[in-house]
Amino acid sequence: MTLAPSDKALVPFVSVDNMMKLVHHIGIEPMLAGLADYIEADFRRWSLFDKTPRIASHSEEGVIELMPTSDGEVYGFKYVNGHPKNTKAGLQTVTAFGLLANVGNGYPVLLSEMTVLTALRTAATSAMVAKHLAPKGADTMAMIGAGAQSEFQSLAMKALVGLKSVRLYDIDPAATEKAAHNLTGMGLEVVACQSPEAAMEGAQIITTCTADKQYATILTDNMVGNGVHINAIGGDCPGKTELAAGVLQRSTIFVEYPEQTRIEGEIQQLDPDHPVTEMWQVLSGEAPGRTSAEQITLFDSVGFAIEDFSALRYIRDHIGGTDYYMDLDLLADPDDPRDLFGMLQRAAP
Amino acid sequence: MTLAPSDKALVPFVSVDNMMKLVHHIGIEPMLAGLADYIEADFRRWSLFDKTPRIASHSEEGVIELMPTSDGEVYGFKYVNGHPKNTKAGLQTVTAFGLLANVGNGYPVLLSEMTVLTALRTAATSAMVAKHLAPKGADTMAMIGAGAQSEFQSLAMKALVGLKSVRLYDIDPAATEKAAHNLTGMGLEVVACQSPEAAMEGAQIITTCTADKQYATILTDNMVGNGVHINAIGGDCPGKTELAAGVLQRSTIFVEYPEQTRIEGEIQQLDPDHPVTEMWQVLSGEAPGRTSAEQITLFDSVGFAIEDFSALRYIRDHIGGTDYYMDLDLLADPDDPRDLFGMLQRAAP
Repeated sequence: MTLAPSDKALVPFVSVDNMMKLVHHIGIEPMLAGLADYIEADFRRWSLFDKTPRIASHSEEGVIELMPTSDGEVYGFKYVNGHPKNTKAGLQTVTAFGLLANVGNGYPVLLSEMTVLTALRTAATSAMVAKHLAPKGADTMAMIGAGAQSEFQSLAMKALVGLKSVRLYDIDPAATEKAAHNLTGMGLEVVACQSPEAAMEGAQIITTCTADKQYATILTDNMVGNGVHINAIGGDCPGKTELAAGVLQRSTIFVEYPEQTRIEGEIQQLDPDHPVTEMWQVLSGEAPGRTSAEQITLFDSVGFAIEDFSALRYIRDHIGGTDYYMDLDLLADPDDPRDLFGMLQRAAP
Repeated sequence: MTLAPSDKALVPFVSVDNMMKLVHHIGIEPMLAGLADYIEADFRRWSLFDKTPRIASHSEEGVIELMPTSDGEVYGFKYVNGHPKNTKAGLQTVTAFGLLANVGNGYPVLLSEMTVLTALRTAATSAMVAKHLAPKGADTMAMIGAGAQSEFQSLAMKALVGLKSVRLYDIDPAATEKAAHNLTGMGLEVVACQSPEAAMEGAQIITTCTADKQYATILTDNMVGNGVHINAIGGDCPGKTELAAGVLQRSTIFVEYPEQTRIEGEIQQLDPDHPVTEMWQVLSGEAPGRTSAEQITLFDSVGFAIEDFSALRYIRDHIGGTDYYMDLDLLADPDDPRDLFGMLQRAAP
């Protein structure tokens, strides 16, 4: 008799190291494009999903959240924290991992790191939406905030929208320098800017991704001209916003899931009945996207569980045949399911 | 430059195999007693905890749940499924895993299997409560339902309450035989019974733990005499109960967390304002436990996140210095937290 667990008891696990190897195996731009395809496919079948606002546990230092969803056949959730002061201690502001499980029997089928994967899926979501909403021919992006997201955002916009130039600005010049250095030789013109106003010059896409956990005004009203697409991804929890209310008032606003965005997004500054369009409606043809060249479109993105679900689906579909995962003995698997105790007894040394 | 993750990025993981080794290393009865101590300690500081009802995703086949909690310093959650038909496919009805994290920075500090651990903590909770509520000198238990929980329940009652005899009954004689076999030589008198009535003879403690996902009447009113303690653990989700309402009406009822028990426990059969006592109040001296020898005490147990939290705390405190865990590369840990992309670039082959 062997005590080795059967394959039912084993859950494929993708570590950070293996996730990075998988990214290089696939190629970062093809992977961003592939993730965007999975995310867009899931937005198109949006009504199928079990949608629950994330379950947050807030503390003075930050927040720990669980983001579950299900399409009726597969269940997924992400664990994610947000701790703005972590950077000072040499830790990540955001770390994450995620899980997929079979709805039919409740058994997990994938455990994966999601710190790297969340950066990829966030960028893929931004670019997928920009592909639909940005003005025709958009090829220049102002990237306000040169933190951990900035390079991923830039490359996703290149892969999906055809971005040619990115104009970087961060309140910390060292961050701008870091992002500019990382993006060198990746096929984009990279311009390090001394002010947000300079970053905005000639940009048809404006991405804001800053980390302060407070009401901030990264974009003032007079900084934003007509005919642009704003990709606002930094304002993503109660009390944390980046855009002046005047910018919101001039924009046509697109969101992932209004119930969540009205609490966590830029629109927490607006009346609770301020009109917004759900992005899945645009993708399924039920609502218009951009209707004129002069319009300001704003994607008020807070990140939603379905995007993580799509990303985990992509990983599950792409690790087969690779060495980029290991099997974890996470689940008990007695020969007779009612005989858990017997399994324990037989494991005695 | 090394690409090996720093210790900040590594999360100790306890597999099923290592959990079983840890149980044998500590000893099953000492471990049940140790878990009961941790659980009792956390019940005594009940008001400190962030209490959220579990987040359930129901399907026709079963349920997948996330059970989070926090004491302000440590955050924990358990993933658990319940799929009654799994047994027919050779799978566990219930599988689980859990996680502890540091509230201050959001970093996970322990990932553990919880299929085996949940069986242990459920038994430890039952016995810890019986220690306080069962009639003095109780030494005989009727164990109705001889599934995966039955042996753990019996040994925990032996370790904490001084149980000498267990009387087993299951609707499936093969299950009774399995449990009787497993408990042989463990220091208990074991009596396999042909009917629930026979199991009840001379028992001062009655434990019900059956698996049907429906309203069932495992204990009818005339089966239950006075002066007993009922440990009802099988009725733990909406529509799933085990006790006749008449038994409930004659009992003094103790629960973990009323908000959850009124939806999931035996008392879903009663008026929403039927009086119940919270077990933490008994342990902290704020409410009486058993007040007379004739009284029927009923612990209407559905399992609560704090018990899992206590069990994970116990594991974290007891794996140090052992070989019964491995470090998982679950978290990204760039040298510069804002330089996730640079970390990814440097991992290129």
